[in-house]
Amino acid sequence: MALKLHGIPMSTCTTRVLTCLHEKGLDFELVPVNLFAGEHKQPPFLAKNPFGQIPVLEDGDLTLFESRAITAYLAEKYKETGCDLLRHNDLKEAALVKVWLEVESQHYHPAIYQIVYQFFVLPLQGKTADQAIIDVNLEKLGKVLDVYEARLGTTKCLAGDFYSLADLHHLSYTYYFMKTPWASLINSRPNVKTWWEDISSRPAFKKVAEGMTFGEK
Amino acid sequence: MALKLHGIPMSTCTTRVLTCLHEKGLDFELVPVNLFAGEHKQPPFLAKNPFGQIPVLEDGDLTLFESRAITAYLAEKYKETGCDLLRHNDLKEAALVKVWLEVESQHYHPAIYQIVYQFFVLPLQGKTADQAIIDVNLEKLGKVLDVYEARLGTTKCLAGDFYSLADLHHLSYTYYFMKTPWASLINSRPNVKTWWEDISSRPAFKKVAEGMTFGEK
Repeated sequence: MALKLHGIPMSTCTTRVLTCLHEKGLDFELVPVNLFAGEHKQPPFLAKNPFGQIPVLEDGDLTLFESRAITAYLAEKYKETGCDLLRHNDLKEAALVKVWLEVESQHYHPAIYQIVYQFFVLPLQGKTADQAIIDVNLEKLGKVLDVYEARLGTTKCLAGDFYSLADLHHLSYTYYFMKTPWASLINSRPNVKTWWEDISSRPAFKKVAEGMTFGEK
Repeated sequence: MALKLHGIPMSTCTTRVLTCLHEKGLDFELVPVNLFAGEHKQPPFLAKNPFGQIPVLEDGDLTLFESRAITAYLAEKYKETGCDLLRHNDLKEAALVKVWLEVESQHYHPAIYQIVYQFFVLPLQGKTADQAIIDVNLEKLGKVLDVYEARLGTTKCLAGDFYSLADLHHLSYTYYFMKTPWASLINSRPNVKTWWEDISSRPAFKKVAEGMTFGEK
């Protein structure tokens, strides 16, 4: 039975999983969820994810939610297929992938999420972005990127000289962030800029990025 | 060479790792970090963790930071020792562990962290807690706990009828949260209460909790 992904092509969290599916070259069916009609807050969807969020992956009788858990599952189940995103044959490299996965989750994401949310999502809901929240988070993100700049001066990617799930998890939000007026936070740091150009030009992500039209007219 | 953990016994993130070390029955050395003297912001420590935070684990020539990455590393490296925290022999159970690890990280932690920080940390720094922030996060935490209450009506622990790293990751913050005036958020939900009593009475955590004296006179 084919993998079934419930989500939409412009969603940051759906695209995190889509990119992983393409890196692995897996067959799957994308099942659209009508967010505007509130489908994700209705009982049939809540039975799949009690938090009422996309994406959800169904693999036979197994139902999974949380995009980072889904990618970790796919990367482990299909570890011998496509790009080895977890470095499963090397305990030390695998450990460093874990470290930088957590850095994305605990440091990078909380800051970049707020900026993307304020800049793209609120205006679409007819609300006004709060510049103070954006400013605080630009400062936080800048400090995180200072660490990245130093790290990426010693290794090609975050966990080492290899592309991993830790890099992949950065793609969706950074792609939208680069369309804000603050892309210079990335572009002014040469190592970060090279890394970003490198990871965002991978065929798996380029395919996914075509559908990332959020905020476009 | 023994595992070396840099941290302090009352820190939430250090105790997350300590609990894992005890569940696995591993020998280790706890190397104290003088936070009051700002040791974690000085170059020798920043060379171990560029974010300047405890804990840090040294395993031979491997240096790891981010408590959740360290526990995942230990749980994988020592998967045959002590409690199997990742359910590594069952892909489906392991997938559900991943899901509930992410739920802790993305839903539970952001809310409970703010409450514990406002209630315990700020007053110790001579600052005043912001009740509005506490209230917003109590509401968020309550909604997360509603999902837990339903889930724990069907399974003994979060990922299934087995204790896992997903449960373990909740211990440190919830332990301090239970000392706030809002412990009823846990105690008023019978399934959550039973789960909390169950996981917090495990010998590995009871040993760790003895050192969790933050906020005590």
